[in-house]
Amino acid sequence: MTKFWSDTVRRTEPYVPGEQLNDPDIVKLNTNENPYGPSPRVIEAIQSELTRKLHLYPSPGVETLRDSIGRNYNLDQDYVFVGNGSDEVLAFSFMAFFNQDAAIRFPAVTYSFYPVYSKLFRIPYEQVPLNRDFSIPAETFFGAEGGVIIANPNAPTGLYLDVNTIEDIVVNNPDQVVIIDEAYIDFAPASAASLVQHYPNLLIVQTMSKSRSLAGLRVGFAIGDPGLIKALIRIKDSFNSYTVDRLAIAGATAAIQDNTYFRTTTEKIISTREWLIPEMKKRGFHVLPSRANFIFASHYKAPAEFLYHNLKQQKFLVRHFNKPEIDGYLRITIGSDEQMAHFLDAVDHILSSADLAVRD
Amino acid sequence: MTKFWSDTVRRTEPYVPGEQLNDPDIVKLNTNENPYGPSPRVIEAIQSELTRKLHLYPSPGVETLRDSIGRNYNLDQDYVFVGNGSDEVLAFSFMAFFNQDAAIRFPAVTYSFYPVYSKLFRIPYEQVPLNRDFSIPAETFFGAEGGVIIANPNAPTGLYLDVNTIEDIVVNNPDQVVIIDEAYIDFAPASAASLVQHYPNLLIVQTMSKSRSLAGLRVGFAIGDPGLIKALIRIKDSFNSYTVDRLAIAGATAAIQDNTYFRTTTEKIISTREWLIPEMKKRGFHVLPSRANFIFASHYKAPAEFLYHNLKQQKFLVRHFNKPEIDGYLRITIGSDEQMAHFLDAVDHILSSADLAVRD
Repeated sequence: MTKFWSDTVRRTEPYVPGEQLNDPDIVKLNTNENPYGPSPRVIEAIQSELTRKLHLYPSPGVETLRDSIGRNYNLDQDYVFVGNGSDEVLAFSFMAFFNQDAAIRFPAVTYSFYPVYSKLFRIPYEQVPLNRDFSIPAETFFGAEGGVIIANPNAPTGLYLDVNTIEDIVVNNPDQVVIIDEAYIDFAPASAASLVQHYPNLLIVQTMSKSRSLAGLRVGFAIGDPGLIKALIRIKDSFNSYTVDRLAIAGATAAIQDNTYFRTTTEKIISTREWLIPEMKKRGFHVLPSRANFIFASHYKAPAEFLYHNLKQQKFLVRHFNKPEIDGYLRITIGSDEQMAHFLDAVDHILSSADLAVRD
Repeated sequence: MTKFWSDTVRRTEPYVPGEQLNDPDIVKLNTNENPYGPSPRVIEAIQSELTRKLHLYPSPGVETLRDSIGRNYNLDQDYVFVGNGSDEVLAFSFMAFFNQDAAIRFPAVTYSFYPVYSKLFRIPYEQVPLNRDFSIPAETFFGAEGGVIIANPNAPTGLYLDVNTIEDIVVNNPDQVVIIDEAYIDFAPASAASLVQHYPNLLIVQTMSKSRSLAGLRVGFAIGDPGLIKALIRIKDSFNSYTVDRLAIAGATAAIQDNTYFRTTTEKIISTREWLIPEMKKRGFHVLPSRANFIFASHYKAPAEFLYHNLKQQKFLVRHFNKPEIDGYLRITIGSDEQMAHFLDAVDHILSSADLAVRD
């Protein structure tokens, strides 16, 4: 710290993203990326944009991409906001909808960026404890003083709330904004985006980093009543006129239009997940019923940190959170069938060589 | 406005960027973009990155690009911060170095995003009047209560302060951060980046949107003492873990390494500027002595707004600011020789058909 740091920097407690190792042999199962590359149409669209106008600013309003996203939900583009990854959309949302004089609520176990934003923008918050099975007690979010943010499916648990439950939370916070962070929704039954035309206080946030295979391109978006979208645009235009670059706009637009590719790869991941979970259980893991592209699993005998380190030696990187409620668990991204078969081999090897008895 | 807007949104007064028209026949001389495309090496680097790992997150630390930028200034990468355009770097800098209880100072005529950031983050500010010739009175910035931000060359005037004058301002604000926004410095005699190793309170902000022809890619950077860079990294990691995407990192790294291309195109623009200024004067314009890739010019007879509209009809888009101190002026980006020759033809046409006498 130096004397030149502002009060704002001094109160920050930065988020620590999952490791991005340079080792080409490592299988990354730690940041919930998609094992499949993006649609070939994405590459074509970027290649075509690449040789044209890189010396000119992008469109500040990002109309083409907002229009394409809207079409997927039968909504006009004034229901859509686009940002530089869903983290930026979330940061802008904290600025746009939450205040310094009223506590917001989010689950005690969730995306760990929420308390980080709260500290950055000095927004008070209440962390609602989960039920013992890690599920979210929906009623506890009714009547929040300053607003609500819930990841659905939740991270790192993978548990999902259905649209009716989300609607209950929205209805029971009529004067506050309810943000549903749907980073993983495409691996779950249904988005709550269908509700935005009925509720002016509901904001859905999604990302193209997971189901659209574009983590490297940084595009996220929000869907909500035009009154909310206008607020996000005001924040964006007070912060950075052009947050999404020309290549990202071109690539993301192609990705959002190629629903065939999207459905194929998403279904593959879901099918790998449904195959993997019983395989993990056979090996003595407790696995939460995930509706995301990751599982959250705890071994009945082998400690999570031990498994994390041994898997890393075996060239599999998974995520272990050093927090009391969840330090017995590993969050493991769903890769391809082949990657997960090798992963199970590595698990078998670790469990057997560690001489840990495995339940039949 | 809806009841869901936060106090923060309510106090914003968003920046209005220059128009990005879709008309392919228009010559854009309104947002100071480079008339030359980026280095061919940029296109190659992006093409190579494109087919590799778009489904994986970029490096959160952006080490390769920071290292390449640092080399240009003989500095280690811990003196370098990279962001999603220099606007993002500036926004993070306002958060990192300025406080709500001490007024910062910037010139009354300058980049109009500074008051926008101040309002967004509730930082009080004093706008220092320029001298009558639009130059910046350096001494007036000594002993600023909360810090200083100066664009050098200044926008939209194009006037330049030499490194000694910048050093005087830095020395005379030993307890506050002095930000020098060098968006246009590559068209001017010298950057003050040479001073950062001597002054822990000096932050230089630059962009790749102008001299490196990458406005469409959104990459900006800051150079300063590692104590300041650490503060920016803390803000970034509390806001958005990965603000620069894989293609932007690849392209920007190639651009910063291709200094031959950079020097050639920059020298062309400077030479066009030096040819254009006397041509404009011949036609009755007062032109400030620009050290940027634009000129700031006022006609002795034809009103600026009249010229703006007529130039637009002639397919030349320039920038007119509707503010009392400067509404008699146009800011005109330096295009290629050919574009500026056509521009002068359009000016001649407008001046003659408007039946305005032109000084010999």
